[in-house]
Amino acid sequence: MPDILHRIGIKASPGESYKALATLPGLAGWWTTDTRGKSEVGDVIAFRFGDRGGFDMKVLALDPAGRVLWQVIEGPAEWIGTKVSFDLAPEDRYTLLRFKHQDWHEPTDFMHHCSTKWATFLMSLKSFVESGKGAPYPEDVRITNTAD
Amino acid sequence: MPDILHRIGIKASPGESYKALATLPGLAGWWTTDTRGKSEVGDVIAFRFGDRGGFDMKVLALDPAGRVLWQVIEGPAEWIGTKVSFDLAPEDRYTLLRFKHQDWHEPTDFMHHCSTKWATFLMSLKSFVESGKGAPYPEDVRITNTAD
Repeated sequence: MPDILHRIGIKASPGESYKALATLPGLAGWWTTDTRGKSEVGDVIAFRFGDRGGFDMKVLALDPAGRVLWQVIEGPAEWIGTKVSFDLAPEDRYTLLRFKHQDWHEPTDFMHHCSTKWATFLMSLKSFVESGKGAPYPEDVRITNTAD
Repeated sequence: MPDILHRIGIKASPGESYKALATLPGLAGWWTTDTRGKSEVGDVIAFRFGDRGGFDMKVLALDPAGRVLWQVIEGPAEWIGTKVSFDLAPEDRYTLLRFKHQDWHEPTDFMHHCSTKWATFLMSLKSFVESGKGAPYPEDVRITNTAD
């Protein structure tokens, strides 16, 4: 099954980077300001993007040593059942973050779109952790002709 | 074989977008200022990134109706033999650009990196076509702890 892969380096410790992935205020700082629910294993986090809808993620793993894993349980049909993971490892004075959005059924047009959009959100995450200022929805980077 | 996929919308005609992909001055405006060779089918374009090396691309297809296809013939081992394509289609007053860097042998760590880096270069392409100002190397967006 096709996967979306990304990697960024964040000038911060893995612990600081982890907070931006494992807590609601952290997630709201770089992905969407409308982040609700509970970030605990077995619980659900709801990410909403106004008229564009959103995603419900079931938290499958939260490891402060450097791993966050979700499964999409609600959202666009193509996302349902896919998994999103963030793996952190220190390198130099940076944290290397490996990202996967895996188990897409087909390499659809929407998958192309989401791949680019994830990259811009990961750059928002990098900026949020490094400087305190991300670009979460509705202040996100627009990559196309629609509201996305 | 795993592929890197992206999609962006450029607020310009397919013809204007095509020029940024099919001519040396166009490519130098968003990918690397050090772009040499000849953009003709069967010829080779050399993209260089200072100490970071670069890539030689053999031009396999150049279709003004909206397609550019290259094959990597020199560069990092993981890139050799892979293909890079840009497909353009009008939508609204935009051009939708679908990008593929296909036929990677393995989803390596470098592939994760290149996926994110391509996204930032495609955003540079978008900006270059829309405003005349891209962010080609050496003014490219840094995504990690190395010079990349």
